[in-house]
Amino acid sequence: MAERRLITGFSNPTVKFLRSLRDKKHRKAAGRFLAEGLRLLTDARESGHLPEMLVMSTSRDPHQLLDRLEADVLAAGGEVLELAPDLLAKITGKDNPQAVAGVFTEFDTALTNLDRSAAKIWLVAQALRDPGNLGTMLRTGDAVGAGGLILIDDCADPFSAEAVRASMGAVFTQKIGQARWDEFLPWLRGGAGQLVAASLRDAVDYRSAPYAAPCFLMVGNESRGLPEEYELACDLRVTMPMKGRADSLNAAVAGAVLAYEALAALD
Amino acid sequence: MAERRLITGFSNPTVKFLRSLRDKKHRKAAGRFLAEGLRLLTDARESGHLPEMLVMSTSRDPHQLLDRLEADVLAAGGEVLELAPDLLAKITGKDNPQAVAGVFTEFDTALTNLDRSAAKIWLVAQALRDPGNLGTMLRTGDAVGAGGLILIDDCADPFSAEAVRASMGAVFTQKIGQARWDEFLPWLRGGAGQLVAASLRDAVDYRSAPYAAPCFLMVGNESRGLPEEYELACDLRVTMPMKGRADSLNAAVAGAVLAYEALAALD
Repeated sequence: MAERRLITGFSNPTVKFLRSLRDKKHRKAAGRFLAEGLRLLTDARESGHLPEMLVMSTSRDPHQLLDRLEADVLAAGGEVLELAPDLLAKITGKDNPQAVAGVFTEFDTALTNLDRSAAKIWLVAQALRDPGNLGTMLRTGDAVGAGGLILIDDCADPFSAEAVRASMGAVFTQKIGQARWDEFLPWLRGGAGQLVAASLRDAVDYRSAPYAAPCFLMVGNESRGLPEEYELACDLRVTMPMKGRADSLNAAVAGAVLAYEALAALD
Repeated sequence: MAERRLITGFSNPTVKFLRSLRDKKHRKAAGRFLAEGLRLLTDARESGHLPEMLVMSTSRDPHQLLDRLEADVLAAGGEVLELAPDLLAKITGKDNPQAVAGVFTEFDTALTNLDRSAAKIWLVAQALRDPGNLGTMLRTGDAVGAGGLILIDDCADPFSAEAVRASMGAVFTQKIGQARWDEFLPWLRGGAGQLVAASLRDAVDYRSAPYAAPCFLMVGNESRGLPEEYELACDLRVTMPMKGRADSLNAAVAGAVLAYEALAALD
């Protein structure tokens, strides 16, 4: 049976590999990403995702959930490593890293993997640049029972440490799609689906809009919003009251307010 | 008439002072904070807030709004400084700083400054640790026409660069209160006001809850939520559907979904 392996030394190739996963380029090359923290790893396990490599700090506190996780990873043929806290800090880039992290295979994000009939609500983000916003949208998607999050054009990487962390485990429960607009639109029109934009243009009030499932709720880039062409291709443009000086909301907030409204209408 | 002053050299005392404002301790000692970017400074000006010191990069592009800002600052007896881009980067701590920043006096955040009858909705956050969440709540408050954001117990600093940035100017339009819980509760009970908690405990559905103005919508700490004692002191506990694995939303998202619901009920 496989055993824990203790790693010492910054120059160990595994440490170098793990550290490289902080970089998008290296994540894509390896097809792997890192998730930190016992809670996140437990959520992953309960959603059917085991890390292929489990990395534990030698200074961790004992925990039943961690024991179970370790046993499952070993049983599945995965690796379990122990590292000194300073090595783990080097890997995660944080002074106070969580005592445990896991290496997962990145999910296939082709649109063809998405079963649109699996949920009434899908979230769509276009050119979303902030990984925290991206993770928050995954988390909101989980809460409203969405099928997943579809990322259009150049978005932040859903497998970055910050997005994974902000998702609070939803990266393991929500489906993730990635596509350019000119792939997404034909895919969408190839089946049932109402495309809804959060918009200020020729829009109906979001409270009385005729949402229809499967409902794809789309928000745009943090600074520029959605391109006009994309809005015009939508079946429905909805707007939220703006009572103050600003003319926009945080993208993740706009998505959440819309998603909860659609949930109330469709549930 | 006052003129622009060109500053060169990292050891200049004004550069040191400006740089020190990245630190909460120094902000509190000086009673000053920094806001970056022409858009933010223009929002501030239009809300009646002029910086006492305007700091411009020598590599800025000319802009009419910047000219107007400069003229207003000088007319009000403020200072205008020009700095090389690398000095500005040192001050803001960013490789690509905005071409302009302003120094503002921190606002008085005593509860006694708040006029609760000025708005139907107030946002309240307890032990909110993430400055991005805090700024996002200010931004949402502006959008729903809230009176302001009241920060209970140890929250992130609303005058930190990250909170100011995430607020998208709302730090200048929303009132900000800061208090311990045992100051806040007597203040609240000293006048009209319904205290509402986002909660999972003995809560009513947020869509059919009897919101009443002035309505104080409270969310808790990112990891721990609200202390039970605080929830029990509320007039109303409301809950949002959680259809997935998670039992909570991002704090700023929960506040926004609630705020838009209360707006629909009270507007």
